[in-house]
Amino acid sequence: MKLAVVVLVLLCNSWRCLGSSHHQASCHYPPSQWCRSLEIAIECKVQKQCMELSAIRPKEAVPRVSLTLYYESLCPACRVFLTQQLFPTWTMLQDIMQVTLVPYGNAKELLTGNTTFTCQHGQPECRGNMIETCILHLSDHAAFQTIFCMESAADVLSAAQPCLHMHAPSVSWATVDFCVRGGLGRKLMHANAAMTRALSPAHTHVPWVTFNGEYKEDHEDQAMTSLFHLVCQLYKGVKPPACTGAAVRLNRGFC
Amino acid sequence: MKLAVVVLVLLCNSWRCLGSSHHQASCHYPPSQWCRSLEIAIECKVQKQCMELSAIRPKEAVPRVSLTLYYESLCPACRVFLTQQLFPTWTMLQDIMQVTLVPYGNAKELLTGNTTFTCQHGQPECRGNMIETCILHLSDHAAFQTIFCMESAADVLSAAQPCLHMHAPSVSWATVDFCVRGGLGRKLMHANAAMTRALSPAHTHVPWVTFNGEYKEDHEDQAMTSLFHLVCQLYKGVKPPACTGAAVRLNRGFC
Repeated sequence: MKLAVVVLVLLCNSWRCLGSSHHQASCHYPPSQWCRSLEIAIECKVQKQCMELSAIRPKEAVPRVSLTLYYESLCPACRVFLTQQLFPTWTMLQDIMQVTLVPYGNAKELLTGNTTFTCQHGQPECRGNMIETCILHLSDHAAFQTIFCMESAADVLSAAQPCLHMHAPSVSWATVDFCVRGGLGRKLMHANAAMTRALSPAHTHVPWVTFNGEYKEDHEDQAMTSLFHLVCQLYKGVKPPACTGAAVRLNRGFC
Repeated sequence: MKLAVVVLVLLCNSWRCLGSSHHQASCHYPPSQWCRSLEIAIECKVQKQCMELSAIRPKEAVPRVSLTLYYESLCPACRVFLTQQLFPTWTMLQDIMQVTLVPYGNAKELLTGNTTFTCQHGQPECRGNMIETCILHLSDHAAFQTIFCMESAADVLSAAQPCLHMHAPSVSWATVDFCVRGGLGRKLMHANAAMTRALSPAHTHVPWVTFNGEYKEDHEDQAMTSLFHLVCQLYKGVKPPACTGAAVRLNRGFC
């Protein structure tokens, strides 16, 4: 790891946005993944920024705030919470929070013969839940970006394929489709159903949000209008600059 | 307006997500536009949520924090700022902030004959700037969503058409393409160039951010890592729940 940092410093000293990046096309990764590995940072010419971001990342062994969202793909209130609170908050606070998405909600599992499901907003919702479940399984890093892309679009289902291509170009639609139509999808959805049924207290509506595995009505109220503030508040470690507003002077390789 | 509210109350009392919305397909608008008008709220079955959100919206005549971003479409640092700070902050604080996007950055305008432009990251960047400029002109309400969709994708340019379709389905790609290739696009880009050249102090890099028309280095530093906190701080009115964390008990028409 130390060697990697030394190599990066050498590379970065000669790196200028106004210099070598002239007339370069974008790299083949979305910005959300640029700092995932050294190789990607180099391909995308953002080593300097990634090193600097890594320098201000919390180093302590304090656990991140764990938020689990139980939801269903076509429920309006779920879409509003996911797109207008959860995704934007996570984008800015992912160093101190961890999100688990469980697309199932008020669906029902019919355990006779080949397991099938019925959904509150009909078969299109079951298909949306299944696509999102398969994407969560197949594309670990880009799954939340892809699901936000779908849920924020005018038409959730028809957005699935272009959203996958935009955020996880290395995962083919055929792989997702194979999962959606086959035993893998059913197995994954059964696990979502079991997780949802295991909730204590049982959910009475969706979106249903737990923090560190626990449901509290006042947390849910706060999450719906001020999730960013709540996550900063719940984090037990030293609050990051995003929470405190502390100015951080970084040379960010501006263009 | 009063009549509209009365009608809404009557409609909402009989509205339940677990009731009438059963087996309904999504409406034809993205969630970001559901509360834009009464007609859309009704079509999307979210009248209740929209009324409640409107009830907690700041009512005072205090001006919103005005942020202008001067940027270019393929600059890595611009893409990171736009997708990881500006868009998520605006999503949660749009009641107290107003965003103006000026895609031009370090481009140059060649004023000989038919105006043309050269860009720091080559012709693909000029095309990206022009597409985003045309989308800002043609699709007022969904423009920022569409541009975020492009800038957050692995490939900015090839994402343009699907992103437009997802967020502004009523605007055809042909209209955007006509703008991009013709005199309208050139005229709009000339205005961006003029706005960028008029900056005082002149910009030395992009992303270049002004608040209420003014550039300050310490604001820029804070904006890059803690924009959400900064906007809450700069807003002169009574801070909204998103900033203070105040719990708001609303019946949000959960599913």
